[in-house]
Amino acid sequence: MDNRCVGVFDSGLGGLTCVKEIMKLLPYESIVYFGDTGRVPYGTRSAETIIKYTESDIRFLKQFDPKLIIIACGTASSTALEYVKDRFDVNIMGVVAPSAAAASSLTENGKIGVIGTNGSINSGKYEQYLKSLNKDLQVYSKACPMFVPLVENGYLDSKVTYMIAQEYLAPLMDAGVDTIILGCTHYPLIKKVISDIVGQHVALIDPGKETALYARSTIDAHEVDPAGKEPEYKFYISDFVDNFSHTASMFLQKEISGNIEKINIENYMV
Amino acid sequence: MDNRCVGVFDSGLGGLTCVKEIMKLLPYESIVYFGDTGRVPYGTRSAETIIKYTESDIRFLKQFDPKLIIIACGTASSTALEYVKDRFDVNIMGVVAPSAAAASSLTENGKIGVIGTNGSINSGKYEQYLKSLNKDLQVYSKACPMFVPLVENGYLDSKVTYMIAQEYLAPLMDAGVDTIILGCTHYPLIKKVISDIVGQHVALIDPGKETALYARSTIDAHEVDPAGKEPEYKFYISDFVDNFSHTASMFLQKEISGNIEKINIENYMV
Repeated sequence: MDNRCVGVFDSGLGGLTCVKEIMKLLPYESIVYFGDTGRVPYGTRSAETIIKYTESDIRFLKQFDPKLIIIACGTASSTALEYVKDRFDVNIMGVVAPSAAAASSLTENGKIGVIGTNGSINSGKYEQYLKSLNKDLQVYSKACPMFVPLVENGYLDSKVTYMIAQEYLAPLMDAGVDTIILGCTHYPLIKKVISDIVGQHVALIDPGKETALYARSTIDAHEVDPAGKEPEYKFYISDFVDNFSHTASMFLQKEISGNIEKINIENYMV
Repeated sequence: MDNRCVGVFDSGLGGLTCVKEIMKLLPYESIVYFGDTGRVPYGTRSAETIIKYTESDIRFLKQFDPKLIIIACGTASSTALEYVKDRFDVNIMGVVAPSAAAASSLTENGKIGVIGTNGSINSGKYEQYLKSLNKDLQVYSKACPMFVPLVENGYLDSKVTYMIAQEYLAPLMDAGVDTIILGCTHYPLIKKVISDIVGQHVALIDPGKETALYARSTIDAHEVDPAGKEPEYKFYISDFVDNFSHTASMFLQKEISGNIEKINIENYMV
């Protein structure tokens, strides 16, 4: 038995979509979340900067002696995980491998679409993982940089979101994909728009859910905290953004409660 | 005569719209520009964080011993200028005062609209400046958070931009403003969309242009570098973002040339 917490971080508050799934699947695990709201977004930045920011996020979470650190951010997972995983003596996982595994086992025609930020798509990491699982898979990637601002500004079900999604998804539809990885924490919030456009026969992979499932199987059976123990949830952010509670509860799908504290993430840079 | 440079900074590359005007109006001045591309955007962050970032930007530029530092960012000008201007022994100006002065002298019906980021609008600084110039002015402010991502993703003249602009500008039109301050560096790039919606009888104030005019009048006549001297332009950024040259030249309206260097802005925090 290991009472230590699970650490989760994201470039902002979107990673709470993953926390929501962990709370559901591992209801007795204590969670420490860090949202880098003072430096969000990561998806538009260079690989070098994404790695630098990811390192400081891990350094911050390491203080809590977590049994596992989950990079809930599609951009940081695809761009920085490989670099950081051997540089810290803590178990670190990202959202790419679980999502790729799910897509690879779900697809019937072998054609998989991947959508994400510029950073995620430029890294080519989803495609690389998918091909390592099955070299015959055909992968079609498309950066969708407008989706994050649309979600963050509440355009979840509006005509402009449909118009922009139509434009982004057209090449994936033309290619005939039967499975799409929603490679960014924000995208599950416009899952209905995406599904309306691509049709219900196309499976949409939610990385938060797949990552929580993967985390449950990763944490050794003996390490799962025993049923009955009250889990502790701690939330840290690097900036108190406008509308914090509203945005957080949009991703968490319930009111955020517990300890919420602002920290200086610059103190964790070397 | 003062051969020292003019320092200009912005949260990202949008401030180059102001640099463009300075190059035009003060063609013999050397310019050092810093674009905080590693922490962009400022407009969604808290006042505390905007001030912290602005202080480090000024600390970086101060090294070049500038005769004047121009905050070309609407958010930093409205949120941080008042706080920082007496804390550094260098002449610092922002975009709010020049834009407000221009609007106040242009309006005929005394009704002025202000559009900007959430940070700028929440600060209330434009309204405060306008009222200090003429307490009878009626000011209508509206945050337009989708405009920056639309511009940065090239939706300069597209239907979605018209739809979102229509939504944002409706309350200003209903109020009957005859003058609108484009309170963010990015907005002049969609001036045509805005003008098509509000009509040509509404004057649109470009802060970059007004600020350059103001800078020319601020720099003492003796301090203007003599015609004939070749100006030096230096550009610094905190991250090499994708499409850097393309985005920079979109704002500068010409190819960016000269020294472009990436720096660690974290080294300038205290």
